[in-house]
Amino acid sequence: MTTDTVDKLTSLRAALGDIEITDTPPAYLEDPRGRFQGQALGLVRPRSTEDVAQVVRAAAANRVPVVPYGGGTGLVGGQVSWDGPPPLIISLERMSGIRSVLTDEALLIAEAGAVLKSVQEAAAAAGLLFPLSLASEGSARIGGLLATNAGGVNVLRYGNARDMCLGLEAVMPDGSIWNGLKRLRKDNTGYDLRNLLIGSEGTLGIITAATLRLFPQPASHATAMLIVDSPKAALSLLSAARAHVGEQVSAFELIAGQGLEFLRETLPDVRLPFDAIPPWCVLIDLGLAARQDGQAALETLFTMGQENGWVTGGVIAVSEAQRQSLWSVREHIPQGNCRIGAIASHDVSLPLSAVPDFIEDARAELTGTSDLRINCFGHLGDGNLHFNLFPAKGRDRKDYDHQRHVLIRTVHDLVHAYGGSISAEHGIGRLKTSDLERYSDPTKLAAMRAIKHALDPHSIMNPGAVIRH
Amino acid sequence: MTTDTVDKLTSLRAALGDIEITDTPPAYLEDPRGRFQGQALGLVRPRSTEDVAQVVRAAAANRVPVVPYGGGTGLVGGQVSWDGPPPLIISLERMSGIRSVLTDEALLIAEAGAVLKSVQEAAAAAGLLFPLSLASEGSARIGGLLATNAGGVNVLRYGNARDMCLGLEAVMPDGSIWNGLKRLRKDNTGYDLRNLLIGSEGTLGIITAATLRLFPQPASHATAMLIVDSPKAALSLLSAARAHVGEQVSAFELIAGQGLEFLRETLPDVRLPFDAIPPWCVLIDLGLAARQDGQAALETLFTMGQENGWVTGGVIAVSEAQRQSLWSVREHIPQGNCRIGAIASHDVSLPLSAVPDFIEDARAELTGTSDLRINCFGHLGDGNLHFNLFPAKGRDRKDYDHQRHVLIRTVHDLVHAYGGSISAEHGIGRLKTSDLERYSDPTKLAAMRAIKHALDPHSIMNPGAVIRH
Repeated sequence: MTTDTVDKLTSLRAALGDIEITDTPPAYLEDPRGRFQGQALGLVRPRSTEDVAQVVRAAAANRVPVVPYGGGTGLVGGQVSWDGPPPLIISLERMSGIRSVLTDEALLIAEAGAVLKSVQEAAAAAGLLFPLSLASEGSARIGGLLATNAGGVNVLRYGNARDMCLGLEAVMPDGSIWNGLKRLRKDNTGYDLRNLLIGSEGTLGIITAATLRLFPQPASHATAMLIVDSPKAALSLLSAARAHVGEQVSAFELIAGQGLEFLRETLPDVRLPFDAIPPWCVLIDLGLAARQDGQAALETLFTMGQENGWVTGGVIAVSEAQRQSLWSVREHIPQGNCRIGAIASHDVSLPLSAVPDFIEDARAELTGTSDLRINCFGHLGDGNLHFNLFPAKGRDRKDYDHQRHVLIRTVHDLVHAYGGSISAEHGIGRLKTSDLERYSDPTKLAAMRAIKHALDPHSIMNPGAVIRH
Repeated sequence: MTTDTVDKLTSLRAALGDIEITDTPPAYLEDPRGRFQGQALGLVRPRSTEDVAQVVRAAAANRVPVVPYGGGTGLVGGQVSWDGPPPLIISLERMSGIRSVLTDEALLIAEAGAVLKSVQEAAAAAGLLFPLSLASEGSARIGGLLATNAGGVNVLRYGNARDMCLGLEAVMPDGSIWNGLKRLRKDNTGYDLRNLLIGSEGTLGIITAATLRLFPQPASHATAMLIVDSPKAALSLLSAARAHVGEQVSAFELIAGQGLEFLRETLPDVRLPFDAIPPWCVLIDLGLAARQDGQAALETLFTMGQENGWVTGGVIAVSEAQRQSLWSVREHIPQGNCRIGAIASHDVSLPLSAVPDFIEDARAELTGTSDLRINCFGHLGDGNLHFNLFPAKGRDRKDYDHQRHVLIRTVHDLVHAYGGSISAEHGIGRLKTSDLERYSDPTKLAAMRAIKHALDPHSIMNPGAVIRH
């Protein structure tokens, strides 16, 4: 530690009194994929919004950067600072309560540290649904999920995290508290500060609590995994499904045969519904109102798909156990990927009609110069693909180190050319700041910089994330 | 005109060349309720985004304020400037095209001047639905609807204008063009500039085009007007409807007996479905997927309502003509109000469970000191009430001039005390800037001022609207 660092810590401790700054356990300096190694001045775990405000005020006065920390599940380094002066990490883990559940109003108010799973459970206990659902739901926390505008498997029907939020409480960069925990469906009183903070990844303020919308629980679900011969066929099937059952299509997931092969190779206990691995399949989930026959709807869709040549086979779940088994295939794909070891992972989105051409072009460009394998899967209903690259069988990801940069650039350039986004649901963090500079509209980037400077003039809020200086 | 004004006009004309600045016809200086009288330096009607950019650049260079103008249907004076240096009015009426309809992607791209009705029609022609729907849809334009984040009758199901927008093209205060016409459902690349411009009422930039989401058209509709004995009973019925038919409740409108009496008095041709005027009724509209029986669902709801004592009578439409006739009652209420002549109109929202107490308390407070009549109606599903005050029978609104300020203050103070919003869907404009200062969270207000100053340092964009200096 430099003298300056020791002085700052002493000065912060004097200002914070009972709010303890501890050493930082290594877990707070890592990320789930083990790609980044962070640094920190210390760790503080406030117990209240007023505590958070006091910490930010002290940090601002001492020009100490702060990094807000939720569940630590982010994949783009938004929670891991490896550059610049060491920051104070503010973990919201002690603020994990659900302040209230208002069944009549179909909403609940959760603190930023509440784990997603506990919010889902609180909603279910009230007979309602909190539809945000993603792989890390057992550890991801509401504050981080909102700060990164998380996505997941139900975006098609219910939207991203931002669409589930009616109000926020947050500590701004000067340490003032914004009491914006509205319980209103409509409120047109001034600029949309809520949506500005959501997705800003802790660079404009720290979310401390949120009012979250709850939804009617579907009376029943119907689920199928259908074999399609191409992404184009999958898109046609999606269109037909939306025309046929309207907004009740809760999820529409594209799965490449490669992903199923990885599962067979690395997780043989995951039961695949097909003997021969198909080139592509889709997982369709309907969430239905009372007295609707989802089974019949899926059968109609299956027949329609066969008649039009989109669908060549598949399984419609006839029991809850079968349904869980189909979902289990989808849910284990990231774990299978992990065991193979990716060269590079991409979280991209495209205009829906551009998805098939993008997949074809990207495959041609990448495999033209490399023997890599591609596992392309994701939330087709949202145009969101996880387009991940893996070593050839028998080779190691390290063999591709020299290519990685070019491969990523190739994918992102193509995404950009098709009018897509280089970060569909994971955010920018510190991993993609240079991508943002390369691909963002310059006018938008200028507006972002002006807003950042206006709200955080000393640049203490998660510096290095989203926008570089 | 002052010499300064003449000089500025000369200088602007020199900079704009072919882009003509004309005199301003009186229609551009009025508002629909005839409450405001505006002023202008001149009117410009650009034909392209590049034209708009050129106008804004010239205005910025000459420090001339600009007021963006859509359909002129706003009710809070956002489009009418009566204070400060006379502005240049930029009407988007010549940019009214629909650039493309992408049926496969369920979206269309409209220019800011496109009239809402024409957008609805373009969606319908593609077999899809653009669900934004409100009284002024025959003249309101997309740019203004987004700039004010308009609401309407389908917010319960589909959200506000902001929820129907995937991307924007806009001219920023320095005249730069933001090319943000994304066609993506998911895009987490930096701050949410789209939602910041939406609802900023032209004070941060001028929307020139938008990518708009389209939805599956319901296969059928079912509509009922049910008599309830109180707003509380109406809320219970809403809860039951949502539990029973899920998100397919498209509209749930509360109507006070007073509104029906105004109709009988001023518009006797509007056919009321009841002989005796009830104290309250609700209009319920279901938009259903294929093979769903809406009639049966409404009958179940009716029976459930009767058994629980919420519903005492009503009509379920059995034909499209009957359905239109029920909607016609709701749609004519503003016109009935207009003919009676309001003392004051309020566009407020409340937490759902606070609606009944608010209505009771507000009535008690207001009628305790005045003989006025109250017509309370609105989008109950969103907690959005139009709580409007009218003179006693035989008296004139002018008789209440001396009370008006106190009456409005009484309503808004009570809304605020209940955690509500003093502008649910109409925005702030110039009418409610002092209300915003009074009721807004101070931290939010400070953030808004910082953002405004950062993006529009010379304060040329619709000055006087939303934020006063």
